[in-house]
Amino acid sequence: MEQVRADVCVVGAGFAGLAAARRLVQAGHEVVVVEARDRVGGRVWNRELPDGTVVSAGGTWLGKGQDRMFQLCRELGLEVYRQYEQGDHLLRLDGVNHRYHGALPATGPKTLFALGLALARLQLMTRRLPADAPWSARGARAWDARTLGQWLSDPRNVPSATARTLLGSTMNLLFCADPAEVSLLGALTLARGGGGFGYYTDTGKTESHLVDGGAPEVARRMAAQLGPRVHLSSPVARIAHDATGIEVVSPSLSVRAQRVIVATPPVLAGRITFDPPLPTRYSHLLQRVVPGAIIRVHTVYPQPFWREQRLSGQTLAPGSPVPVTIDQTPRSGRPGVLSSYAFSTGALHLGRLDPARRREIWLDALTERFGPEARHPAQYLETDWSSQQWSLGGMIGHFPPGTLTNYGSALREPAGRIHWASTESATLMHGLMEGAVRSGERAAQEVLVALSRARHAAALPDRSP
Amino acid sequence: MEQVRADVCVVGAGFAGLAAARRLVQAGHEVVVVEARDRVGGRVWNRELPDGTVVSAGGTWLGKGQDRMFQLCRELGLEVYRQYEQGDHLLRLDGVNHRYHGALPATGPKTLFALGLALARLQLMTRRLPADAPWSARGARAWDARTLGQWLSDPRNVPSATARTLLGSTMNLLFCADPAEVSLLGALTLARGGGGFGYYTDTGKTESHLVDGGAPEVARRMAAQLGPRVHLSSPVARIAHDATGIEVVSPSLSVRAQRVIVATPPVLAGRITFDPPLPTRYSHLLQRVVPGAIIRVHTVYPQPFWREQRLSGQTLAPGSPVPVTIDQTPRSGRPGVLSSYAFSTGALHLGRLDPARRREIWLDALTERFGPEARHPAQYLETDWSSQQWSLGGMIGHFPPGTLTNYGSALREPAGRIHWASTESATLMHGLMEGAVRSGERAAQEVLVALSRARHAAALPDRSP
Repeated sequence: MEQVRADVCVVGAGFAGLAAARRLVQAGHEVVVVEARDRVGGRVWNRELPDGTVVSAGGTWLGKGQDRMFQLCRELGLEVYRQYEQGDHLLRLDGVNHRYHGALPATGPKTLFALGLALARLQLMTRRLPADAPWSARGARAWDARTLGQWLSDPRNVPSATARTLLGSTMNLLFCADPAEVSLLGALTLARGGGGFGYYTDTGKTESHLVDGGAPEVARRMAAQLGPRVHLSSPVARIAHDATGIEVVSPSLSVRAQRVIVATPPVLAGRITFDPPLPTRYSHLLQRVVPGAIIRVHTVYPQPFWREQRLSGQTLAPGSPVPVTIDQTPRSGRPGVLSSYAFSTGALHLGRLDPARRREIWLDALTERFGPEARHPAQYLETDWSSQQWSLGGMIGHFPPGTLTNYGSALREPAGRIHWASTESATLMHGLMEGAVRSGERAAQEVLVALSRARHAAALPDRSP
Repeated sequence: MEQVRADVCVVGAGFAGLAAARRLVQAGHEVVVVEARDRVGGRVWNRELPDGTVVSAGGTWLGKGQDRMFQLCRELGLEVYRQYEQGDHLLRLDGVNHRYHGALPATGPKTLFALGLALARLQLMTRRLPADAPWSARGARAWDARTLGQWLSDPRNVPSATARTLLGSTMNLLFCADPAEVSLLGALTLARGGGGFGYYTDTGKTESHLVDGGAPEVARRMAAQLGPRVHLSSPVARIAHDATGIEVVSPSLSVRAQRVIVATPPVLAGRITFDPPLPTRYSHLLQRVVPGAIIRVHTVYPQPFWREQRLSGQTLAPGSPVPVTIDQTPRSGRPGVLSSYAFSTGALHLGRLDPARRREIWLDALTERFGPEARHPAQYLETDWSSQQWSLGGMIGHFPPGTLTNYGSALREPAGRIHWASTESATLMHGLMEGAVRSGERAAQEVLVALSRARHAAALPDRSP
C-alpha cells in the first residue's frame, strides 16, 4: 500500500473537495485528495453517448447569485451560455397540455392565488431561520416534528387541490424524495440558502446558464491544476484520528496528515469507519441525512424539433411517470438533446421494471407532450443515481424530521481534526454546485486557521509549568 | 483468506441469525454463520464487572406472549425467574417523588383520563394495520407523513400537559429516539406487533421474567450447538449474488452458498456492499431504518437497599437526565444491581461530557430518587450502544416518516437469493428478542422452501424445448 504524507487530506473529489483542496494549495499547503470513483466531479458527471455526444448527467446548470461558480468558470477559462428559453413551457394536467411562458404555470386564478399564498407562508417561516443555525429559530422544534408532505397536503396551507398537486410535484423534484420524508424545518433550511423557495422553484433563476463543455469540465480543470495530488479509485474505508494527526486509509493508499476534510455526501461519510468512533451526534447525523432517488434520461434527436413547435422543451407533468423535461441541446444547436426525469417513488417504480418496458413508458410520456417525433430518439441514455455505488441515491441528502434540531450542530462543527464539506452543509445555495464549492472553501478556511494556530503554538515558548 | 462452502450463509450471530441457523441445521442443511463482533448475541450482551458480577447490558427481560423465547430457554436448559416487583414504583415529577404500584402512574385523575384517551386513540389506529403490510392500511399514507412527536404534542390527542410529558418520556424510552424522528405509522407498526402500545408500555407485561445467567446465555448456548459453524470477528464487507449462488466476503473468510440470510440491524446491512447493487427500494430502506441512542449504567451496591425502603427499583422521571431505572439484582439477591438509562438526545448530551462529570450527574439523578446510599456504588459500568461499532446506536431501528409507505415492501421480501431477518422486520413482538427469533425462523422457513424447490427442479427431467 502506498503511504503518503501531507498537511491536509481531502476525502472526495466532488466540487466541495476540489474547491477545498484548491484553496489549501493556493495557501501553500501539501494536500492529498482521495476519491472513490475513477473520475472527479462527484454528483456532476459528463457521459459520452455512442455517437460522441457528451451529456451532463448530474449537476448541470448555473443561475442567479451563484457567484463562486461563475467566477470559477472565468478562472478556469470556461465560457458560459444561456439556457434555451424561447417558446412556451408546457404544463400537462389531467391529460391536457397547457402552454405558458415565464415562471407561473398555466393554471386558473384560484390555483395561482393558492400557490402565491403557500409560497408566502413558507417564506414567512423561512425568513425566521438563522442561516447558520436554523435549529435555533423560534418554532424550530415544532417545524422539525412535521413533514413537508403533511404541510403541503393541508388545505389550510394550500387552499386548492391543483396547487397542492403542483407544489407536491415541485418538492418531489427539489428533494428527489417524497415530501413525507422531509422535515418541514429541513425543507425551509434548503430554501433559506437561496433566499426562499421562490428561488429554487424558478428555473429562470436557478437554471439560467450552462457551462460550455458541461459543468463537469469545471471539476476536470480544477483536478488538472491539482495534478498528482488527486488519487482516483481509492475508496476511503477508515479514518484514524488522535491528538497528533489523522490517518486516512483506502485499499491502495494511506495518507497521514494534520487535518482531514471529509467532502463526500453525508450518506457516504457515514459508511467510513472512524477510529475512535465519532461522537454520537456526528454519527447519527451522517446516518440520517439520506438521499432520494432520481433517474435521468437523455434522448437525442437529429435536431431540437420541439423548438420548431415554439416549445422551450421545459415541461411539468404531475402524475406522469416522467414529470419533468428540459432542453439540454449543446451550444452548437445540434443534435437535439432532451433531458427528462423520474423522481422519488416514481423512480423506484420505474427502476423495478425491465429496461425495455421502462424505455417504452418513458418514451410514451415524452410523446404525450412533444408528439410522435419524441418516440424515436437516435440515442437513449439512462442514469439511475441510486445504483451508483458512490452516490447511493440522488441528487441531495435531505433532513428527515428531528434531524436538524437534535443533530444539526454536527453539520459543520469540526470533530477534532475532522472537518466537513458537502452541499448539504452549505448555508448558501444548499444542494447546488455553488453550495458545494462554498462549503469546500469554508472548510478549507477552518483548516487554514487551525494550521496557522498550530504553527504559532509550536513557535511560541512553552509557558505551561 | 479461508474459503468455505455451505447451503446457506447467515450474516450476524444475534438472536435472529442464531435462530435462523439453528432451524436450518435442524433441517439438515450446511450452514455458516459470519459475525462481525468477537462474541455472539448482538444487541444482547453480558458484561463482567471487576468484582465478577455479570450484568446483561442489552436485551434482558422476557414477558407475556414471548412464547418462542420461553420455549428456547426450556430447550436450552435455562431457567427463568420473575422480575422483582415488590414495593412501590416511583414517579418523579417536578422535583417530587410519588410512590405507586401497578401499571398506572401516580398522577391525578385528569392525567390518567388523558393517558387512557390517548392510548385508546392510538389503539384504534393500530388495529387497522395488517400485521404483515401496515403500509397498506386505510389512512397509512397520512399517518406516515406525520411524526409520533407531533401527534403526542397535540392537546387534541392528549388533553393534559402531564400526560403529554409522560407519554413523550415513554416513547423516548421505547424508540430511544426523539418521537419527532419517528413516523406515526412506524410507531403504530411497532405497537401492532404486541397487540397495542399497552403491551409495550406495561413493564409488568414486557419485562416480567429474567433468564438465569442472563439473556445472553440463550445466545451462547444456541452458538454452542452450532459449534464451528459460527465464525466470529468476521465483519462482512461484500455480498456478491447472481443466478448461480451468493458469495459472502469478510477480511478473513469467504463463503459460497445457495442463499444468504442477512440477520443484522438494518443500519449495518446498509453498510455492506452488494454486488450487483440491491434494487433501490432495498438500499433506501436500509439507509432509513436508523437506531436511536441509549446509555445504560449498572450501579452495584452490597445489597438492593431500595428493597428495604419498600421500593421496587423501578422509577420514571421525565425531565431527568436519567429518566428510567429498574432493579436488575441477580436471582441470588446479592449484590444489589440497579440498571438506569439515558435515551435519545438525553444520551447524546451526556455522551458529550467528560466521564467524571457524566458519572456525577448520573449518581445525582439516582440519589434524588433512592437517597444518599445510591450515590456511592461499589461498581459503576456504562454501556453506550452508539459507540459500539457493530451497533451504531440502540436499541432498535425506527421508521422515519415516509419509510414504510415507500419502501416497506422491501422489509421482508427476499431480493433474489438474499433473505432478511432482524427484530425490525418482525411482524410480532417487533423490537424484542422474541421478534428477532421469530424473524430468524421466518427467514429460515423461506430458505427451506426455496432450497426444496431448487432440489425438485434439479431432480425433474427438463421439459423445456
